[in-house]
Amino acid sequence: MNETFGDLGEFALISRITNALVTGPEVRLGPGDDGAVLSVDGAVVASTDVMNENVHFRQDWSSAADVGHRCIGGAVADVEAMGAVPTGVLIALSAPASTPLTWLDGFMEGVTEECASAHVALVGGDLSTAGAISVAVTALGQTRGRPVLRRDGARAGDAVAYRGRLGWAAAGLSVLTRGFRSPRAVVGAYQRPQVPYGAGAEAARNQASSLIDVSDGLVADLGHIAEASGVVIDIDTGMLPSSEPLQAVASATGKDPVNFLLAGGEDHALAGTFPFGHVPPLWNVIGIVEGRGDRDPAVFVDGREWLGERGWTHF
Amino acid sequence: MNETFGDLGEFALISRITNALVTGPEVRLGPGDDGAVLSVDGAVVASTDVMNENVHFRQDWSSAADVGHRCIGGAVADVEAMGAVPTGVLIALSAPASTPLTWLDGFMEGVTEECASAHVALVGGDLSTAGAISVAVTALGQTRGRPVLRRDGARAGDAVAYRGRLGWAAAGLSVLTRGFRSPRAVVGAYQRPQVPYGAGAEAARNQASSLIDVSDGLVADLGHIAEASGVVIDIDTGMLPSSEPLQAVASATGKDPVNFLLAGGEDHALAGTFPFGHVPPLWNVIGIVEGRGDRDPAVFVDGREWLGERGWTHF
Repeated sequence: MNETFGDLGEFALISRITNALVTGPEVRLGPGDDGAVLSVDGAVVASTDVMNENVHFRQDWSSAADVGHRCIGGAVADVEAMGAVPTGVLIALSAPASTPLTWLDGFMEGVTEECASAHVALVGGDLSTAGAISVAVTALGQTRGRPVLRRDGARAGDAVAYRGRLGWAAAGLSVLTRGFRSPRAVVGAYQRPQVPYGAGAEAARNQASSLIDVSDGLVADLGHIAEASGVVIDIDTGMLPSSEPLQAVASATGKDPVNFLLAGGEDHALAGTFPFGHVPPLWNVIGIVEGRGDRDPAVFVDGREWLGERGWTHF
Repeated sequence: MNETFGDLGEFALISRITNALVTGPEVRLGPGDDGAVLSVDGAVVASTDVMNENVHFRQDWSSAADVGHRCIGGAVADVEAMGAVPTGVLIALSAPASTPLTWLDGFMEGVTEECASAHVALVGGDLSTAGAISVAVTALGQTRGRPVLRRDGARAGDAVAYRGRLGWAAAGLSVLTRGFRSPRAVVGAYQRPQVPYGAGAEAARNQASSLIDVSDGLVADLGHIAEASGVVIDIDTGMLPSSEPLQAVASATGKDPVNFLLAGGEDHALAGTFPFGHVPPLWNVIGIVEGRGDRDPAVFVDGREWLGERGWTHF
């Protein structure tokens, strides 16, 4: 018999979750009280991200562990995108009482592994019944005395660069949508994004002028920087990476692979702008920041307005 | 025509939410970037609380503004219960695309008013589609150099005291469940709990030895303190308050009003323990902490084990 959330009850479920937790040096008090307590050096960076069943994930496309990996990665990437050092996460998990306990165990396995990769501790959360699974993750981080990297700091002459992957998750999703399970590399990238942990603080150390998490798509997200900074960002597609699995998916689906690169979100790459000569070694330069002149702030592709897909929006 | 979430789209919805926000002295960067930034004096206190439609609220019993008030109050009460000073909240709001925009406006009105009462700023959030409304709120606070008030600090000889309301929300819910709308005082207490803001820091200044938010019920929540502290807590029902609306609901429903006081949650009173002589003036003393001797840690009522309702649990 498959035991469910309803069989075990709230407090036993919480024990099952918290028994296996590891903690970190910043955690003064972890789960088990009304709130968690974390050491912070002057400023705390906080961001919340929600993932809903049948909106952000489907159980037949994502295992419980995949959901655990992805919800932590997505939330922590936002703290990285402020140039901060992530420290802790809180999870509000809603699920039907009929959810099998094996789902919880798989979910927590994914959460725990991803927290270890991100060097964050799970410090708190909440648990409730609901009609479908919903996971809201709040990630916290600290600035270590460095200024945060906002969206409004890009200046004409800056280099545009990113670190992480572009388009892989979108390619994976398009494969799954068509009923296939391969190429395995892109499907895996959709299920468990490879967030470039540490890249946020690296950008801050290297005087990045702006930074953002690519969650909706490169053009859409750089568009937020262009708008907040009042600049035009020009992406040179010749500088975008070419990878075998993206090419394969593109040719199988009759698409230009550049669509995945420019409009695919959910890989949680970090993209931003750096004063020329300050781009760190592992970052890929893909364009420049121009003064807007009499143009509206926008993202151009190869010198022209981009008329293709821009990326994901809700509602 | 009623405009809906789906009509407006994600980014216009976010503008509608963020345009009216007020900020506070601790907020270095509010909504609009990947994360919020708050000043913190050494330690941040964080807690997450989720409220789901048809689990925690029904739209026919709670207006959108009520839901806004309640979700903020419930989350901030957890930060108060650590003896901390609340500073900011983040909201992850999930809702069907068909949700009317008037619901959002009402919700934000409630959120904004409750944030003002609690002296916290709304600093961030996320927005997503879902099959039903779900609100996950993370509240942040700071300790101002004082030790946090945990559940494990109660000592034999301490006084047990609370501040806020007991049983009103439960009485209101029992009235609504029976299809009535009055007494208006208890229905209103269910719809918009009166959280005793500032009581957490007050308890910390007065050397409280433990503190908890009464969200599940007095016996259930003091039970967490008894267990964590390894003590027996004895509540004297003669010291519990008697109020007209609770008496009225109890007699109308054939219940003993003490049931509401001992097992009713969701008023978000703060309850805790103080060394004798340290209970602040506005707090009501209702019992004492005893050494457990050879007894299991527990909450006693008038010297005996409590066999009535204990309070709310999920699943």
